[in-house]
Amino acid sequence: MIIDSHAHVVLTDECYKVMATLTGGRNNPPTGGKLPSDAIIRRAAESLLKQMDEVGTDVQLISPRPYLQMHSLAPATVPLMWARYVNNLIHKQCEMFPDRLKGVAGLPQFRDTSPSNSIAELERCVNELGFVGCILDPDPTEGDGAPPPGLGDPFWYPLYERLCALDVPALVHSAGCCHPRESYTLKFVNEASIACVSLATSKVFDDFPTLKLIISHGGGAVPYQIGRFRAGAARRGRSFDEQLRKLYFDTCLYSKEGLELLFEVVGADNCLFGTERPGTGSAHNKEWGHDFDVLKPVIESIDWLTAEDRHKIFQGNSRKLFTRAFK
Amino acid sequence: MIIDSHAHVVLTDECYKVMATLTGGRNNPPTGGKLPSDAIIRRAAESLLKQMDEVGTDVQLISPRPYLQMHSLAPATVPLMWARYVNNLIHKQCEMFPDRLKGVAGLPQFRDTSPSNSIAELERCVNELGFVGCILDPDPTEGDGAPPPGLGDPFWYPLYERLCALDVPALVHSAGCCHPRESYTLKFVNEASIACVSLATSKVFDDFPTLKLIISHGGGAVPYQIGRFRAGAARRGRSFDEQLRKLYFDTCLYSKEGLELLFEVVGADNCLFGTERPGTGSAHNKEWGHDFDVLKPVIESIDWLTAEDRHKIFQGNSRKLFTRAFK
Repeated sequence: MIIDSHAHVVLTDECYKVMATLTGGRNNPPTGGKLPSDAIIRRAAESLLKQMDEVGTDVQLISPRPYLQMHSLAPATVPLMWARYVNNLIHKQCEMFPDRLKGVAGLPQFRDTSPSNSIAELERCVNELGFVGCILDPDPTEGDGAPPPGLGDPFWYPLYERLCALDVPALVHSAGCCHPRESYTLKFVNEASIACVSLATSKVFDDFPTLKLIISHGGGAVPYQIGRFRAGAARRGRSFDEQLRKLYFDTCLYSKEGLELLFEVVGADNCLFGTERPGTGSAHNKEWGHDFDVLKPVIESIDWLTAEDRHKIFQGNSRKLFTRAFK
Repeated sequence: MIIDSHAHVVLTDECYKVMATLTGGRNNPPTGGKLPSDAIIRRAAESLLKQMDEVGTDVQLISPRPYLQMHSLAPATVPLMWARYVNNLIHKQCEMFPDRLKGVAGLPQFRDTSPSNSIAELERCVNELGFVGCILDPDPTEGDGAPPPGLGDPFWYPLYERLCALDVPALVHSAGCCHPRESYTLKFVNEASIACVSLATSKVFDDFPTLKLIISHGGGAVPYQIGRFRAGAARRGRSFDEQLRKLYFDTCLYSKEGLELLFEVVGADNCLFGTERPGTGSAHNKEWGHDFDVLKPVIESIDWLTAEDRHKIFQGNSRKLFTRAFK
């Protein structure tokens, strides 16, 4: 079985209209808007399933499109209404295809507000809608203002406590970016690095030994730049690698060189297959003869991975982490 | 010959006192402060030479310690006075050991002020003090406020014009960071990524075909995350790699995995040996039996590099770029 741990829901034109009304239109007080009809939702989900079938993916864990989460958009009811709306849409799609799609909740994070603000929606999604995880944005200011503390800080503990109690993992993934010089795609990478270092130099896993965090996009820069952080830790008599291996990483890297480095540095035990397809990598790679985000054959072509390694990457680690999805 | 393209001047206690007076003390109007005596400066330079000898480095290109540049500290005369002071110190050390040390100037950048503000100091350093390059901070706000546009923007053109006219390269390297969640060392990496992508998706090299820019720390995350950017460029019918190879990269990565990936992705023609020693990587690596930033043996152990590749990395590319240093 191939489990894609990093995938996003397909929105339809109707959804964008709701989003536009919530934002540009600023209906005040903001209300959630109506979901598209079941027929339209089914068609959107089927288009996703078709793409999964084409590349041999059995299950996708689908979350909101990160860059459309509007975490910095005031008032706080905007991201709240939108998170609920998109989570309801994800729920509908998962209900229609329960063996192929599993829900990963978006949280109504807002700027530098405590993540306690997101617990009610997390519980609704997990307990009432059957979601199996959530995404966690380390910078809900989206670059517009001073960000909250790093993920290693007790600021985030109320959320970590709930994640442990519910036994669901969080995929660490930023949202939009308000700086013209830092596209949201670059922000994803930079925030993954910041999150990774903050967590790996913190006491979070002493305080929450059962916390399950997946750093998206292969850990940003950290596996590549690891020497820098190893040196810093060595100077304090610690092991950066040991700390790093308390985290998990997805394979959303679209080069074989990058994937090999990830597997070498963090090891197969800590990597989850993830493609984000359809998304940034959905463009034809001439050299490969298929899209950049068709990663199954690329990983299969890495000949030094053992069969056991591949099993862990393609499904074993996702099964281990997403206990509510795979019983 | 081994040329270390990324190295920094050794400051002494006297220098820190001047810095403290400029900052905490805020003498107003700020004045530059006195350089240490020649004997003290010589001793500092000799300590650097000793370290170079120990690891087989023939020449270091020395610039100010990036994180101590104070580019965000108002008034603008603070970074100006400090840049002049440190450049004068570098000049002294280079004069004492002209075959071993070459000067790379710090610029008195200030927040989002145009880099035109730095041209007089750049010209002083190159024309009067014999400097061979400069370092360029892509975010002189140091994270405290909205940063200036990315390096691909015409905002930076006045400086690029002078760099070309003077025929000196710039090492792209950020300074401090005011966000508690993003250490300056993480900021170095993230800013290298932002710079790299901004430049590789710009028209800068159409407008300045002779501009020579070196992205520090092996390009931040970009070589590792290259699939992401290749996909984006492919979608627009362009080649990201082609653009990337208009840039140069130093080898300030402290793992063999990272170095191999850098050489694979950007190629030996575009990589300059650089260690930043003594610096972040000066901690003992048990596995290697020497410090993380002793990179010569690590690069020599990469067996698929040809003798020609190694020659380019260790000296050829630095000679090609730093024409004023190696005639």
